[in-house]
Amino acid sequence: MILETIVTTQNLAGQPHIAPMGIHSDNEELVILPFRPSATLDNLTATQTAVINYCDDVRVFAGCLTGRRDWPLKPAEMIAGHVLASALAHSEVKVIRIEEDPVRPKFFCRPVCEANHAPFKGYNRAQYSVLEAAILVSRLNRLPIEQIDREIDYLRIGVEKTAGPREQEAWAWLIAHIEAFKKGVHA
Amino acid sequence: MILETIVTTQNLAGQPHIAPMGIHSDNEELVILPFRPSATLDNLTATQTAVINYCDDVRVFAGCLTGRRDWPLKPAEMIAGHVLASALAHSEVKVIRIEEDPVRPKFFCRPVCEANHAPFKGYNRAQYSVLEAAILVSRLNRLPIEQIDREIDYLRIGVEKTAGPREQEAWAWLIAHIEAFKKGVHA
Repeated sequence: MILETIVTTQNLAGQPHIAPMGIHSDNEELVILPFRPSATLDNLTATQTAVINYCDDVRVFAGCLTGRRDWPLKPAEMIAGHVLASALAHSEVKVIRIEEDPVRPKFFCRPVCEANHAPFKGYNRAQYSVLEAAILVSRLNRLPIEQIDREIDYLRIGVEKTAGPREQEAWAWLIAHIEAFKKGVHA
Repeated sequence: MILETIVTTQNLAGQPHIAPMGIHSDNEELVILPFRPSATLDNLTATQTAVINYCDDVRVFAGCLTGRRDWPLKPAEMIAGHVLASALAHSEVKVIRIEEDPVRPKFFCRPVCEANHAPFKGYNRAQYSVLEAAILVSRLNRLPIEQIDREIDYLRIGVEKTAGPREQEAWAWLIAHIEAFKKGVHA
């Protein structure tokens, strides 16, 4: 099962890095698969720890993909690391095994601390639309523009029907990013 | 903002009713909009109370739309009512105002108790695919079959890539229901 989360890591100097990541969950183990090269890969290799943040503020996902990476953090509880302040819950994990791969090495992790900060408030279709649109933005160079336009048109329905202010803001960032990309392509 | 939740109500004899519902959330108020006629409408009118369950087990959503309504319940804390055992969190609410409507009356509610049972575990794209497919199932009589097939094909991608066992089971119930409906239409 793949969970869309925000992974926070830090380098040996303690500088934090925030990245949206789909992690694999299999009973006790959580598997982080950072692309090569990436700051998350470097930090995981150096510190062997990470914080997996379960966050329902979709602005963090959309923000990280559109140049807005400065989200409030607080210190982790059991490891040297950082927790996303807006996370509803988080897991602090240690790497127990690495499976090497030329594209995406697998870091098998075990939680050393789990915290539940605020209640889940139910599904919101606009949040899903933002997540899917964020995934499209991460693939702008690899997908046909027609497919992106078609999927955005479908995803917009959920935004128009169900979004709150956070979802509207995140959606607007992604749409502006796609429009700028299209202008660049056709310039 | 519209949240997809499971609303539990009961009649004056104490018999529970479970229904997936999109509720409107506006700061302090939660608005339940049951269709006319429905058990939720009758129960809300009779008891003026409900439990709004924030649940990430999509089998409850898919089950209620495919004839599987028997989900484990436990007693509510502050009102006469029932909480879905699998809810990550719930709100017990009292009706404070009703706005009549020939199709969907609005029950404006205020929470009298909020509980946080288990942590949110991050977004899962397959869960949203199940939710969207459940919404399609609820509109089988009103949508062209071609549109349903097209949207199911798109939603299936998230299921194939990210589902766990609960999501796979829920998805299979919905697909079987759609296939049976198509056979009935073409019989």
